[in-house]
Amino acid sequence: MKTAVGQYKLFNDPVHGFIHIPKGILVDLIDHPYVQRLRRIRQLGLGYLVYPTAEHSRFSHALGAMELCQRVLQNIRHKGTEITDEEVESTLIAILLHDVGHGPLSHTLEHSLIDHFDHEMMSTKIMSALNDHFNGRLSMAISIFEDTYPKTFLHQLISSQLDMDRLDYLRRDSFFTGVSEGAIGVPRIIETLRVHDGQLVLEKKGIYSVENFILSRRFMYLQVYLHKTVLAGDAHIRGILRRVKELYEMGKPPVVPSPGLSYFLSHNSVAQTGIHDEMMMQYTSMDDHDLYACLKSWQQSEDTLLRILSSRFLDRQLLRTTFLDEPASDSLLDSLQSPVLDVLDQWGIQKDDSSDDATSYVLYKDLSTTEAYHHRGQDIMVLQENGEIEEFSKASDAQHIAALSQPIRRPYIVHPKEILIEKFL
Amino acid sequence: MKTAVGQYKLFNDPVHGFIHIPKGILVDLIDHPYVQRLRRIRQLGLGYLVYPTAEHSRFSHALGAMELCQRVLQNIRHKGTEITDEEVESTLIAILLHDVGHGPLSHTLEHSLIDHFDHEMMSTKIMSALNDHFNGRLSMAISIFEDTYPKTFLHQLISSQLDMDRLDYLRRDSFFTGVSEGAIGVPRIIETLRVHDGQLVLEKKGIYSVENFILSRRFMYLQVYLHKTVLAGDAHIRGILRRVKELYEMGKPPVVPSPGLSYFLSHNSVAQTGIHDEMMMQYTSMDDHDLYACLKSWQQSEDTLLRILSSRFLDRQLLRTTFLDEPASDSLLDSLQSPVLDVLDQWGIQKDDSSDDATSYVLYKDLSTTEAYHHRGQDIMVLQENGEIEEFSKASDAQHIAALSQPIRRPYIVHPKEILIEKFL
Amino acid sequence: MKTAVGQYKLFNDPVHGFIHIPKGILVDLIDHPYVQRLRRIRQLGLGYLVYPTAEHSRFSHALGAMELCQRVLQNIRHKGTEITDEEVESTLIAILLHDVGHGPLSHTLEHSLIDHFDHEMMSTKIMSALNDHFNGRLSMAISIFEDTYPKTFLHQLISSQLDMDRLDYLRRDSFFTGVSEGAIGVPRIIETLRVHDGQLVLEKKGIYSVENFILSRRFMYLQVYLHKTVLAGDAHIRGILRRVKELYEMGKPPVVPSPGLSYFLSHNSVAQTGIHDEMMMQYTSMDDHDLYACLKSWQQSEDTLLRILSSRFLDRQLLRTTFLDEPASDSLLDSLQSPVLDVLDQWGIQKDDSSDDATSYVLYKDLSTTEAYHHRGQDIMVLQENGEIEEFSKASDAQHIAALSQPIRRPYIVHPKEILIEKFL
Amino acid sequence: MKTAVGQYKLFNDPVHGFIHIPKGILVDLIDHPYVQRLRRIRQLGLGYLVYPTAEHSRFSHALGAMELCQRVLQNIRHKGTEITDEEVESTLIAILLHDVGHGPLSHTLEHSLIDHFDHEMMSTKIMSALNDHFNGRLSMAISIFEDTYPKTFLHQLISSQLDMDRLDYLRRDSFFTGVSEGAIGVPRIIETLRVHDGQLVLEKKGIYSVENFILSRRFMYLQVYLHKTVLAGDAHIRGILRRVKELYEMGKPPVVPSPGLSYFLSHNSVAQTGIHDEMMMQYTSMDDHDLYACLKSWQQSEDTLLRILSSRFLDRQLLRTTFLDEPASDSLLDSLQSPVLDVLDQWGIQKDDSSDDATSYVLYKDLSTTEAYHHRGQDIMVLQENGEIEEFSKASDAQHIAALSQPIRRPYIVHPKEILIEKFL
Repeated sequence: MKTAVGQYKLFNDPVHGFIHIPKGILVDLIDHPYVQRLRRIRQLGLGYLVYPTAEHSRFSHALGAMELCQRVLQNIRHKGTEITDEEVESTLIAILLHDVGHGPLSHTLEHSLIDHFDHEMMSTKIMSALNDHFNGRLSMAISIFEDTYPKTFLHQLISSQLDMDRLDYLRRDSFFTGVSEGAIGVPRIIETLRVHDGQLVLEKKGIYSVENFILSRRFMYLQVYLHKTVLAGDAHIRGILRRVKELYEMGKPPVVPSPGLSYFLSHNSVAQTGIHDEMMMQYTSMDDHDLYACLKSWQQSEDTLLRILSSRFLDRQLLRTTFLDEPASDSLLDSLQSPVLDVLDQWGIQKDDSSDDATSYVLYKDLSTTEAYHHRGQDIMVLQENGEIEEFSKASDAQHIAALSQPIRRPYIVHPKEILIEKFL
Repeated sequence: MKTAVGQYKLFNDPVHGFIHIPKGILVDLIDHPYVQRLRRIRQLGLGYLVYPTAEHSRFSHALGAMELCQRVLQNIRHKGTEITDEEVESTLIAILLHDVGHGPLSHTLEHSLIDHFDHEMMSTKIMSALNDHFNGRLSMAISIFEDTYPKTFLHQLISSQLDMDRLDYLRRDSFFTGVSEGAIGVPRIIETLRVHDGQLVLEKKGIYSVENFILSRRFMYLQVYLHKTVLAGDAHIRGILRRVKELYEMGKPPVVPSPGLSYFLSHNSVAQTGIHDEMMMQYTSMDDHDLYACLKSWQQSEDTLLRILSSRFLDRQLLRTTFLDEPASDSLLDSLQSPVLDVLDQWGIQKDDSSDDATSYVLYKDLSTTEAYHHRGQDIMVLQENGEIEEFSKASDAQHIAALSQPIRRPYIVHPKEILIEKFL
Repeated sequence: MKTAVGQYKLFNDPVHGFIHIPKGILVDLIDHPYVQRLRRIRQLGLGYLVYPTAEHSRFSHALGAMELCQRVLQNIRHKGTEITDEEVESTLIAILLHDVGHGPLSHTLEHSLIDHFDHEMMSTKIMSALNDHFNGRLSMAISIFEDTYPKTFLHQLISSQLDMDRLDYLRRDSFFTGVSEGAIGVPRIIETLRVHDGQLVLEKKGIYSVENFILSRRFMYLQVYLHKTVLAGDAHIRGILRRVKELYEMGKPPVVPSPGLSYFLSHNSVAQTGIHDEMMMQYTSMDDHDLYACLKSWQQSEDTLLRILSSRFLDRQLLRTTFLDEPASDSLLDSLQSPVLDVLDQWGIQKDDSSDDATSYVLYKDLSTTEAYHHRGQDIMVLQENGEIEEFSKASDAQHIAALSQPIRRPYIVHPKEILIEKFL
Repeated sequence: MKTAVGQYKLFNDPVHGFIHIPKGILVDLIDHPYVQRLRRIRQLGLGYLVYPTAEHSRFSHALGAMELCQRVLQNIRHKGTEITDEEVESTLIAILLHDVGHGPLSHTLEHSLIDHFDHEMMSTKIMSALNDHFNGRLSMAISIFEDTYPKTFLHQLISSQLDMDRLDYLRRDSFFTGVSEGAIGVPRIIETLRVHDGQLVLEKKGIYSVENFILSRRFMYLQVYLHKTVLAGDAHIRGILRRVKELYEMGKPPVVPSPGLSYFLSHNSVAQTGIHDEMMMQYTSMDDHDLYACLKSWQQSEDTLLRILSSRFLDRQLLRTTFLDEPASDSLLDSLQSPVLDVLDQWGIQKDDSSDDATSYVLYKDLSTTEAYHHRGQDIMVLQENGEIEEFSKASDAQHIAALSQPIRRPYIVHPKEILIEKFL
């Protein structure tokens, strides 16, 4: 069980410097096809359509989060909290695998492929399969991941408001998009975490860095994760996949040069009753290349709608997002039907080419939601100088943090860019 | 022809800050599918197998080189050299498109798909097609690219020992690999270029920065571009493609879920007599996704050799490179035959599964060559304080630059990692 | 009046890259002793006592602000606003000289040396002297600086809530302290400024960057500018200077190896009725070295209080700041008298060594105030997509920005570190 | 003797991230006036005259070198080399204090104040005094510093071709000058050091990083440390101090508002027979402020030569350096006498104002020498994969490294900028 001292495999990382992988099971896990697959899934899905250099993969994020976790565990030990070598290894395994259940384009497709799906369910399923493969060596890691392990703070490093997952992805996404405003002070946060009464807490001197972290998170949501072009691209892709499913239902399936996608688009998979082995196998066979190979193939599809939507996506002729003050009303949507049909016609999609409801592929109403910080259930706790613990938004003298606990809801509508929504409001 | 003043489309770039695209034809070109395709081709091919974050595309490189070119043109104008608005635009077009002829994985596949091919030939062909499409608006750009335009220095910005292509890729590749030692002082070099007697020259005060540029280039070749794992990965891929070609010849073609790759792997395309339209069309339909979709499909191939080589590649069970003091002798290769066959057998490839010469897919000898600086034909010229021009390696007081003019040749052998070459020397 | 095109003097700057000084009067001004003096004044005064690398001077800040101003002027021109060459030059002069009136340690000494003083009064006086010296070449610059020039936006670049002064100092101070959380997106803000109806406005797309700028400003105030050790050091220095003034009054002046400091400590200078020439001359003879030379000399003073306070300062045995929930009451201060006298005794300061009121040198109550953003008088105005102008905190969808308009007031007490204030509350 | 686990005092450092000071004697030493003094000595002396932001102090360098040493010690331990806690602490003490003997402006004044002086002699003397003060706690540190401690590799970390001193100063000076070309890959070098047979060696995979380190060192010498303006400034200062010494000898001493400088300029101190206590006390009372306070005072000196040279220095009207192909001949110097006297006259220095040999203050010939790498005595040794050790320039396949072992000698002449040396060659 013991990792030989001083044995690391090193990876370069422009974000955090070197990544140190303790030799042994962690190296074996990284070499496993399930983890190697993450090299072929972009962390930010369609984010590269807005930020051309946001092309980094889930793989480097998994390594980065693991490295940060390793550093914070070392610091916490140094401050006197006892952590066994096995616990260190298991926590690193848990964070390495925390996102292993992501599918093509990270979040984009999740709900298009499997109903009631959540990528963490898949991560759990995959960890369990790996645990079998490695003869139970992942049992403690799974227990930490599922928060059933007694030392709660280990789970909090993996999943909480101030976990190493967030610390890595915010810093990494800021780095690769070039959005310098999203940069957070990772080293300072790591230096100011400690364990108190079995919980992960923040030392008081780290409070401003965490304020900055919360604000940067908000910034990245508004400027990157929920950027209007990303929202439009996601809707565009979901429309295409919906069309393929319909074609299956209509008995006119297109060529789908990806066994995994073919499986999910032809079946109606439901995750509610658990993920069975076949589902996991098909799922782990997929990555971004499957989706792009299909899109490229569909550029030649016989179905006009599928053909044109796929071509337009690949040539980056995307739909457009317009944010609204309040959710789009039915009457707004009604009034858009006819102009949208005109646009479709212009694109080469005639009414009879397609389904009854052609406009539904290029016209969506939705609501983007984010909370920069929400102090319910899993608050960030701050250790005062007098030894007492206080919830973060109270410990901070900043009224604006309390303000940030309110979720940001932004209704929007996705539509062909030929249409100016303002004219219909 | 005139670009409206002050009209830019901006892209974020973590490497150089903002990229400014003058509105007009440059924006139109970037929106064209031929350029959008570059988003789906990794700049460093298989470099990400060694440097996990080296996942950046040719697209961001093309934009970056264009931005640097724009900056240097502005400086040169400012120093008194006359350059028309049309010349600026055409130079930017030329550099934007200089690499548009790259295929999947940048350099990896070039010679596997078309005999006697060079990606610059394809770039020229594509520019010519775009020129037709844009009614001759690219004529001056093509003339600059082909070095037939009278103001030679414009061509030198695009293609010379100190061109904006190199400046961008060195800085960018250093940034995304995290190899800080490869970082060069781009702003200083840009500030110290000027035009003298119609030629691009370096002001004397830039000399140490250019020394550093040459040494960083050498560094990047040794540590990144010709990294032993990259060489092994390239050989691995070429072996797979050779097998597919053979299967076509044997009348047992595998499924090839990419029309472009299918075209080139089933034909024997030759570029010597020029690139015809069909070739260009098929070529520009391909990107990295085509290759990966094929590799993923071939994991299920009926041909054992193809199936196992493809699976091993995707799971990153790569071949290994060993550098030698001198080129591998025939007797060395002979002595490796039998142990390599044993390894293949271990992998599940029996002798009769495969071709007569099974070992040839996993055993290669080769020679990597690079010159950090070569002063033949297109020397870097330095403007002395007395107004005279001197060739760079003479202007520098560094004997080591002269030393660097010697090409570095490193013979190597690629082989299964189960075999320790040292034992056979 | 015209600056020859393409003639720049370059300075390296790790913060913004190169600084370009147009040759001509700007180079002459930088070479002038009044500006060279800024090389000997630390931007952050005593900030280096907390952040060891915060040792940068006002000189590099002046150059940096000038460079940013140059860039934004170029952009604004590019967007179609007419600005003459003379206006560019004059704006650059104005920002270069905006802080030329700072004295030793920037803000620390201002009120100790001259009553009712403000460094901008001195900047104006010095500009006027320079204008005489340069035969009226600075008249337009002075008019811009004093906001009497018709094109208001030029003044706003130099002095407003979003001026180049703030942009430079926030970025620079963040860089040199290593407080990465204070980093702001300077290039993006510069790209999104424009002139509308003669006013400097922000394009809507810059809104999040400016939010981030406001929050970073708040961060830097709390973590750097009003850091408790800086507040303690400032109080320490002011106590020493007050003692020297008293010694003059008592007819027992110490050695003051600085003509400038000697002048101000022996006189009672008042700025209310304007700054006369003698005052300016004495003032511009001083820099940080004057203060430190005095402190070092006072380590040997015959006056015990002065000797010990000076030695303790130089050896970094500083006073301590304790922040309070509300301003220190008289009864708190009373109850501290006796323990503070004990501490002084411990330090070697007996009651009769010193003034009647020995504790007053080491015990202060004060209030630090900062407003991250205040929208009164000189609001940041945002240009909406529909062409209308809106005040920033309304244009932003962030309630927390409104919250930040409230000033932060933090009462505190400075005292010997041997005393634990909590025990007296 | 034991450092309590987990007890660190943290400093921010923009160069390496956080600096961790183990609580205990290391914190006490940093708080000691001898170390605090380093806050007032600029690392690069007059380098800020060329690179305005090169204003960082020896103090931050000492902390940075200590931090790197701590990191490499941790790695080396991790790789299996036994190092006791006391050895770690002593090595950190030794590197913290390695430069404690530097005087004002680091290297500039060394030979002007004390004959046959070397700052390392003073460092040793000061360490010895501190050892007395701390009751022998520094004995092991001194033994490591003087290379009498059996574990040689500890000394090599402090003083060798690849020591933590060089690693810190190259990285730090590159950072603060903004000379990005001088940036070295500190983390990689630290990761690739280990101990073999009791010696510090480099693992083979670190070889290119060390090549880069050597070339960066050369770069920094040519572009920064021996920059022609720095050489001119140093000569300017030395000329001023020589004049002061002469005035003492002539019985007309100027005011010297610094006890330390007064001591050394009025005495003829010789270090050859060791440094006595009085010398050390006077020496440690001085820092950069002493020199600048004197220069400022001398602006009012009655001695014309001293007055004018001091004023010109403070207003940055420096001498100029011209590099020559070979050392300046006597006849060249002779031919310059008369024109230089004319320049002095122009400055207001008449022949009879000054010494017999007025030109000697503004006309110097000298030779700057640097070796990027010299493999004599203390070579960098490389650990091959086969377990053998090879000297670095042989292990590297780069002929240019061998070339770099040759020292660079550049003869030069310092002279008034009004004179164009080329005209006299």
